[in-house]
Amino acid sequence: MRRIVVAPDSFKGSLGALEVADRIAAGIGRVLPESRIDRFAMADGGEGSIDAVLATRHGQRHLEPAADAMGTAVPAQFATLEEGGRAAALLEVAQVIALPKAPGSVEQRSSFGVGQQLRRALDLGVRQVFVGLGGSSTNEAGVGLLAALGVRFTGADGRPIERPALRDLEHIVAADFAGLDARLRDVRLLALTDIDSPLCGATGATAMFGPQKGVASERVALYDGWIRRFAALCEPAAGRRAATLPGAGAAGGIGWALQLIGAEARSGALAIAEMNGLDAALAGADWALTGEGRSDAQTLRGKAPLAVAQLARRRGVAVTLLSGAIAEDSLRALSAHFDGCFSIIPRPMTLEAAMGHAGELLADAAEQLTRLRIALWRD
Amino acid sequence: MRRIVVAPDSFKGSLGALEVADRIAAGIGRVLPESRIDRFAMADGGEGSIDAVLATRHGQRHLEPAADAMGTAVPAQFATLEEGGRAAALLEVAQVIALPKAPGSVEQRSSFGVGQQLRRALDLGVRQVFVGLGGSSTNEAGVGLLAALGVRFTGADGRPIERPALRDLEHIVAADFAGLDARLRDVRLLALTDIDSPLCGATGATAMFGPQKGVASERVALYDGWIRRFAALCEPAAGRRAATLPGAGAAGGIGWALQLIGAEARSGALAIAEMNGLDAALAGADWALTGEGRSDAQTLRGKAPLAVAQLARRRGVAVTLLSGAIAEDSLRALSAHFDGCFSIIPRPMTLEAAMGHAGELLADAAEQLTRLRIALWRD
Repeated sequence: MRRIVVAPDSFKGSLGALEVADRIAAGIGRVLPESRIDRFAMADGGEGSIDAVLATRHGQRHLEPAADAMGTAVPAQFATLEEGGRAAALLEVAQVIALPKAPGSVEQRSSFGVGQQLRRALDLGVRQVFVGLGGSSTNEAGVGLLAALGVRFTGADGRPIERPALRDLEHIVAADFAGLDARLRDVRLLALTDIDSPLCGATGATAMFGPQKGVASERVALYDGWIRRFAALCEPAAGRRAATLPGAGAAGGIGWALQLIGAEARSGALAIAEMNGLDAALAGADWALTGEGRSDAQTLRGKAPLAVAQLARRRGVAVTLLSGAIAEDSLRALSAHFDGCFSIIPRPMTLEAAMGHAGELLADAAEQLTRLRIALWRD
Repeated sequence: MRRIVVAPDSFKGSLGALEVADRIAAGIGRVLPESRIDRFAMADGGEGSIDAVLATRHGQRHLEPAADAMGTAVPAQFATLEEGGRAAALLEVAQVIALPKAPGSVEQRSSFGVGQQLRRALDLGVRQVFVGLGGSSTNEAGVGLLAALGVRFTGADGRPIERPALRDLEHIVAADFAGLDARLRDVRLLALTDIDSPLCGATGATAMFGPQKGVASERVALYDGWIRRFAALCEPAAGRRAATLPGAGAAGGIGWALQLIGAEARSGALAIAEMNGLDAALAGADWALTGEGRSDAQTLRGKAPLAVAQLARRRGVAVTLLSGAIAEDSLRALSAHFDGCFSIIPRPMTLEAAMGHAGELLADAAEQLTRLRIALWRD
């Protein structure tokens, strides 16, 4: 009996990752009704990471108040589960300070609520905290998160800044890490990201991701300078350097703040694939299929399908990509990682038509791939 | 060494069949540079049939004057070749009386020039004549062709009609087959078509194909009646019945006229596949790929890709379809005939974009299919 593993990311705007997996599995099942098809939802540390893990792993969802980017208390989700034999929490910054419909301006927004959520997870006694860094609306080097975790920041007037944001960075004259939550010393902290950027500079948080969060182009250099100065102030106080580490620039610099207090940066997609059971399921599988709404140069920078491909090939399993759209100029590079890259698009059509029928198109395409896959080389 | 056979139809409006085959072969070659890839051009008896055969078979092209549908002498192409050890001619009615840019009205158009071409082939001493019936602009039951071959038609005024057309059918009072070219008795005549229609009625030539040739919908029944009366007049005179045979309705009834004088109707695509060497090449092949610009319900009615699929499966060879577009509502039915049906479309795009880049899209898609095809089931 064939054992096939299906592990796609979501098709953003049309289907969630598990729905995508279900449709692909349905198509395969039309051709190989006797096969065992293990379905997983994938994500890359951004939105959908909690859903991806809890789709196949037992765990608990928590919905508790946390400050959104403007400080308003909102119910925000995180998960706890047993991982590697120890209690773990999985947070998504996007649950608290998501970019879509973000309130206020980027200068005012703070990651304070993410720190609150992290403390809440520590209250529950977890020994590991995974923080998914995708989809944030902030660009404040995680100053809010650090403050929520007990770091004290002093302004030019000598008074503490309670809920600091980007606009406060230029005024901070001192950072005191003595009050940092002591429980963090005994906890494994992981920053999940597919971003390699350092904190500052041409490939840093502000230059690369500031504009999409509302940083005016003429202010990029100014804010980058504020963050550089702020990091130079904090690093001696924290007794650690992190500004040039890969991933420091993730989530507007939350990647830096977490690494400053001891986190390891890891590929979000690889971490999710470990947590949701995909990596283990690939052992001895006959074929893996992954996919995403659109495949392009971004895919090659650590998105979920690339992680699935790496894990599958490490296990000697053929792995095929099935996407809503494949950018022609990335196909050559994508080809190196997959046993075939295919789109679900059966004929010239609009994006709207494709998104409106993504479920059927996925099942149909998976069916056709399976028909080719099972064809013998000679009768 | 893998031996792969590539035998697509043309992608109408963008690439000829042999170009399509070249692009598919190029894509396969990127993955399997050591494989032997045998390329064939396919056609279904319509336009492109001569090119399809002469792409891989030695033969001669003849360019000689023949009357177009309105009687103007134009240079028209046919081919001669050795087939099954005997001299053969291959004609396409579309070379003489093609529908695109057809002159005059359907009432005035005549297949006379096709008969002239057939006589010219007989002059060259061929013992077999293959007549490809696709793409005609006429709807006159082949009365022109019969006249050119020596059948004498008499009008109500008692005078012979030299170059009869649809408008003459209601006036013909007698048909005399005594003058039919005697050389036809010793010649094998084949009518190549993918049309099963009888001559008359709801699925006949006029009802099915008249409108696209310019028959006004309110005149369909009238012309169908003329043709029915004309056939009833001719069949006793010819000593043969053909009006209800499959294919009689092809080419506006030329299918009937040819069968009336002894032709066999055959699948154009299957005949081309024999003539161009494809059928023989499939023996012992490892994989066959075929394709066409658009696959839909028409494909299942004997178009080239279906013929390739039938011949490949008869030889136990896996066969895959690669099309410019696949109609979703025909996919289920198409699936039964192919080891996977795929489009070349990598993302939502317009028909114009797809046609403008068909060559690259074909090569890319063939490459990806090959990557999947060669993936082992287990390492």
